[in-house]
Amino acid sequence: MRIVAADTGGAVLDENYNPIGLIATAAVLVEKPYRTAKISIVRYSNPFDYDLSGRQALKDEAFLALKLAKKVKPDVVHLDSTLGGIEIRKLDDPTIDALRISDRGKAIWHSLRKDLQPLAKKFWEETGIEVIAIGKESVAVRIAEIYAGLYSVKWGIEHGLEKGFIRIGLPRYMKVEVKDDRIFGESLDPREGGLYGELLIEKKDFGWQVYPNPIARTFMVFEIRV
Amino acid sequence: MRIVAADTGGAVLDENYNPIGLIATAAVLVEKPYRTAKISIVRYSNPFDYDLSGRQALKDEAFLALKLAKKVKPDVVHLDSTLGGIEIRKLDDPTIDALRISDRGKAIWHSLRKDLQPLAKKFWEETGIEVIAIGKESVAVRIAEIYAGLYSVKWGIEHGLEKGFIRIGLPRYMKVEVKDDRIFGESLDPREGGLYGELLIEKKDFGWQVYPNPIARTFMVFEIRV
Amino acid sequence: MRIVAADTGGAVLDENYNPIGLIATAAVLVEKPYRTAKISIVRYSNPFDYDLSGRQALKDEAFLALKLAKKVKPDVVHLDSTLGGIEIRKLDDPTIDALRISDRGKAIWHSLRKDLQPLAKKFWEETGIEVIAIGKESVAVRIAEIYAGLYSVKWGIEHGLEKGFIRIGLPRYMKVEVKDDRIFGESLDPREGGLYGELLIEKKDFGWQVYPNPIARTFMVFEIRV
Ligand SMILES: [Mg+2]
Ligand SMILES: [Mg+2]
Ligand SMILES: [Mg+2]
Repeated sequence: MRIVAADTGGAVLDENYNPIGLIATAAVLVEKPYRTAKISIVRYSNPFDYDLSGRQALKDEAFLALKLAKKVKPDVVHLDSTLGGIEIRKLDDPTIDALRISDRGKAIWHSLRKDLQPLAKKFWEETGIEVIAIGKESVAVRIAEIYAGLYSVKWGIEHGLEKGFIRIGLPRYMKVEVKDDRIFGESLDPREGGLYGELLIEKKDFGWQVYPNPIARTFMVFEIRV
Repeated sequence: MRIVAADTGGAVLDENYNPIGLIATAAVLVEKPYRTAKISIVRYSNPFDYDLSGRQALKDEAFLALKLAKKVKPDVVHLDSTLGGIEIRKLDDPTIDALRISDRGKAIWHSLRKDLQPLAKKFWEETGIEVIAIGKESVAVRIAEIYAGLYSVKWGIEHGLEKGFIRIGLPRYMKVEVKDDRIFGESLDPREGGLYGELLIEKKDFGWQVYPNPIARTFMVFEIRV
Repeated sequence: MRIVAADTGGAVLDENYNPIGLIATAAVLVEKPYRTAKISIVRYSNPFDYDLSGRQALKDEAFLALKLAKKVKPDVVHLDSTLGGIEIRKLDDPTIDALRISDRGKAIWHSLRKDLQPLAKKFWEETGIEVIAIGKESVAVRIAEIYAGLYSVKWGIEHGLEKGFIRIGLPRYMKVEVKDDRIFGESLDPREGGLYGELLIEKKDFGWQVYPNPIARTFMVFEIRV
């Protein structure tokens, strides 16, 4: 099975370790044995001007996933919304009302589906590929999350080299290491069976540190100081 | 404390990684230090003709656990239903209604108890051994789950050698390795403190692979191809 | 960020692995990189005369945390109650009623706040340091929990040397090792990013064992036999 998935993650943190805004949306192509991405692409946000309360992330993820899917023609596209694997093109209002999710979740999807349903329907009509809301059940979505963390660190290195310092909150239970010209990241949850990712970067000289976010257990911080 | 426990697990998967039917019920005898089974027995189902929606598993588990318990006379028998450790022989209808579980759980137990309560009561009268519904709190139940996975792999090897290919979904966060004449399995959750199991098999030549189930995060797949 | 946190843990277990009473409350000072304590202090309870149903623990934790905080002047004090990081000094009755917690949780806090709110308010007026209810989100609270386990083992060694045997239930997913004149403990959850602690003890000769509590999955038992 060839899967395209997308997720958003990595946040600039303030001095009290609270998130200011999200950094990166990543889309990945994942193939058997489903442990890392064969291809990844990124779309950066402006973390210093980000509406954390909004629902922009899932839209960005859908658009970026379809951009990659158009190129690599996977068997299926996975989005990070845990609705039991339902096809997005079938999400009309009565179907949303019948979902076993919270009222708040329903309100969000009544609004989201205005953009996402036509998008998924058109993509399915043109390619036969389904876009499904599978969320945390998907290994591919988790790999996209790890890549969102890797791209956030890549952005952080560039930002830090310019400004002298940056503190980034990584996605849930993952760690990263900078080795010469590569950023290596992996899940800290062994139950996931060894998920990881890697990005090439330009080799530069700087100090970095990874440590637990003191106010968000199981989340790590990446910090760079030049 | 000497504990007998039983659980069902391991599923034949279709080409989309969805379960077709369950493979094995295992009963185990677990003794201090509670990391593996001293004795294990198995009862195989027909995964190609299995009612996944049914409640057959827990009945199979109770019968198999009592079969082993009659032989090894443990201090207690653990079943995989998380009801806070209540004695099955005491599960009459008013007691079930008073449990803090969902209405669906109550309906299931009103039906299940017709078989299980008399069974547990008779066993307790004859032996003084309690059969309790402790479920996910029990380390012995988890070890039975790991053995259900091991027996499923053993079945899968035989089936695969005959048919050329089989894909099996293992129980939650466990991995297996085939080494010469043994199948070794262990929990992928280090919080469980190192639970594992082992089965002897006839040494044969075949290729196998273990990797994450892409649509069921924290579940691994075992695949054999001859 | 310099954090003082406190937690209670470690229980004497009976022969069926059920808790009789809690052993130790620990307060810790945690500094960047937030993986262990720089300073720790302890207050022992009498586990053989302990009201497990009571709410004494959180009061003990608040008093011990403030005792340490008065000395080391941290930036913030973390208590083990998961209320989203709300300041204890602001917990008046209408605020408690507006919390998104269970009715039972509200009843407990209506009673608890009579002691804790004036305490936190006075401390804040004198020092400017906030005492917050952050609970399981806090890495510092988890480190305090690990130290409560270490102090429980220290108590257990002394008790065991005197009485010949003791069985202690450690806090959730942590293990301990006794090495000459040190007790080393660490989290078994790698998602936490490597949390650990260490206590010095007098070097003595005794046998000890750590193994899973068979009726409390993810909890380990420490046992000493002389
Ligand atoms: Mg997401
Ligand atoms: Mg089961
Ligand atoms: Mg606590």
